[in-house]
Amino acid sequence: MGAFSSQYRVLYYETDKMSIVHHSNYVRYMETARTEMIRDWGYSYDDIEKAGIWMPVLGVEVDFKTPAVYDEVLNLKCWTTKLKGASVEIAYEISNYETGEVHVTGKSRHGFTTPELKPIKLKKEAPEIYELFKNAMED
Amino acid sequence: MGAFSSQYRVLYYETDKMSIVHHSNYVRYMETARTEMIRDWGYSYDDIEKAGIWMPVLGVEVDFKTPAVYDEVLNLKCWTTKLKGASVEIAYEISNYETGEVHVTGKSRHGFTTPELKPIKLKKEAPEIYELFKNAMED
Amino acid sequence: MGAFSSQYRVLYYETDKMSIVHHSNYVRYMETARTEMIRDWGYSYDDIEKAGIWMPVLGVEVDFKTPAVYDEVLNLKCWTTKLKGASVEIAYEISNYETGEVHVTGKSRHGFTTPELKPIKLKKEAPEIYELFKNAMED
Amino acid sequence: MGAFSSQYRVLYYETDKMSIVHHSNYVRYMETARTEMIRDWGYSYDDIEKAGIWMPVLGVEVDFKTPAVYDEVLNLKCWTTKLKGASVEIAYEISNYETGEVHVTGKSRHGFTTPELKPIKLKKEAPEIYELFKNAMED
Repeated sequence: MGAFSSQYRVLYYETDKMSIVHHSNYVRYMETARTEMIRDWGYSYDDIEKAGIWMPVLGVEVDFKTPAVYDEVLNLKCWTTKLKGASVEIAYEISNYETGEVHVTGKSRHGFTTPELKPIKLKKEAPEIYELFKNAMED
Repeated sequence: MGAFSSQYRVLYYETDKMSIVHHSNYVRYMETARTEMIRDWGYSYDDIEKAGIWMPVLGVEVDFKTPAVYDEVLNLKCWTTKLKGASVEIAYEISNYETGEVHVTGKSRHGFTTPELKPIKLKKEAPEIYELFKNAMED
Repeated sequence: MGAFSSQYRVLYYETDKMSIVHHSNYVRYMETARTEMIRDWGYSYDDIEKAGIWMPVLGVEVDFKTPAVYDEVLNLKCWTTKLKGASVEIAYEISNYETGEVHVTGKSRHGFTTPELKPIKLKKEAPEIYELFKNAMED
Repeated sequence: MGAFSSQYRVLYYETDKMSIVHHSNYVRYMETARTEMIRDWGYSYDDIEKAGIWMPVLGVEVDFKTPAVYDEVLNLKCWTTKLKGASVEIAYEISNYETGEVHVTGKSRHGFTTPELKPIKLKKEAPEIYELFKNAMED
């Protein structure tokens, strides 16, 4: 499958007095990107949490290239870059949906844990979800 | 005791592209105002929740007078306006801490409930907290 | 035309530790509701601002009926309730898109001003936009 | 001078349904940390913007160690790690103010630009601010 893209329109309260999207919001857009990717697989993130698998964020990295502005439609692209037994790394590219201009690239790392944050082996505990993350690697 | 005031400095991400505080944030400042009032009484809102008393917001009203700006220190004033068996109404005045210029006035109504959102009689269940809300009425 | 409805899916960071949508976010959803109504009319809110017409929020009222939760699809319905020379009142109903359960009802009042916040007569300055707000009154 | 620390109390709406601070908020806390460091130097970030020096965020990195919770007082520590002609890197450690438990470590990179985002040589344009960033390097 490789990468998945969804679209998101910038909201007024996400702008700041520089008249651009406040940089912290891209970390939120990255969450939306991976949530929509998982939904495209036939799961909601809520389903996964309810199945007892949590995906706490272990780290994020964001590189800001160009600013996004109010009411702009963003393309939120993401894909798996690393998949280990108990963790996954996802990469992101956030761009203008029409022009393709890249605003931000980023990465997030997540553990797979119980609701008590005890690490679990995803491949063993939920092999079908493990396969989906694996399929989301770019060729 | 009557009204209680705390101070809060406007953060960058609370501004929007009009270069003023986005209006939705005042509802958040009102929450901060009442939390700090309760803290001044010797309780944290967390203590109250842990004691099994929840205060869901039933309604809010906000009137916007003048805009607040980045880095401005706000005075968050609040006091009890109505106290019934299972609900309370709190009023707010948010102003510039130095000049006194009023930015916003508002009200919020809260129920007193169990964590399952079943109404409780605060006067009976937690008379000491009931008295504190009563004392926060303006003379 | 009367009322207009758009849909919005609740995001993770909009929930709070009560596991429901934090009440302040409904004020943001109301902004999204009216923005999408205006877009349905063939304008973006950005277009209107660029045409020199600002719509500062003068007041909001929100009544909370039932809580919305993570990943729920909301129906954001809004319509004009009052239209004067230099101001408009818009009403909102935010509900579960599938079941119709009402979470929140609300109102917002807006002025029509120049970018310097000087009131303008919308009917005279932008009669086509005035007509659109008028058409958005419920029968 | 080296590192500077300020304190910040976690707000209710910054928590999410995991009952912990939503990870995106730490990027906002990092902004608060550097703003307060600059204030300690005798400047507000607003003064610097008004003097025509903008500090757009070029990148952020955050590593999440342990979760922070509602009403917890955080210690926001930051210091300069790299200072070049037209950019600076700042490091952060966000911990529990009382116990010292580290929640998050992070870095941000900023350019020095005109309001039109044209890079400027800070050492030449504003040597006194350049010195302050230099002094904020840890020994």
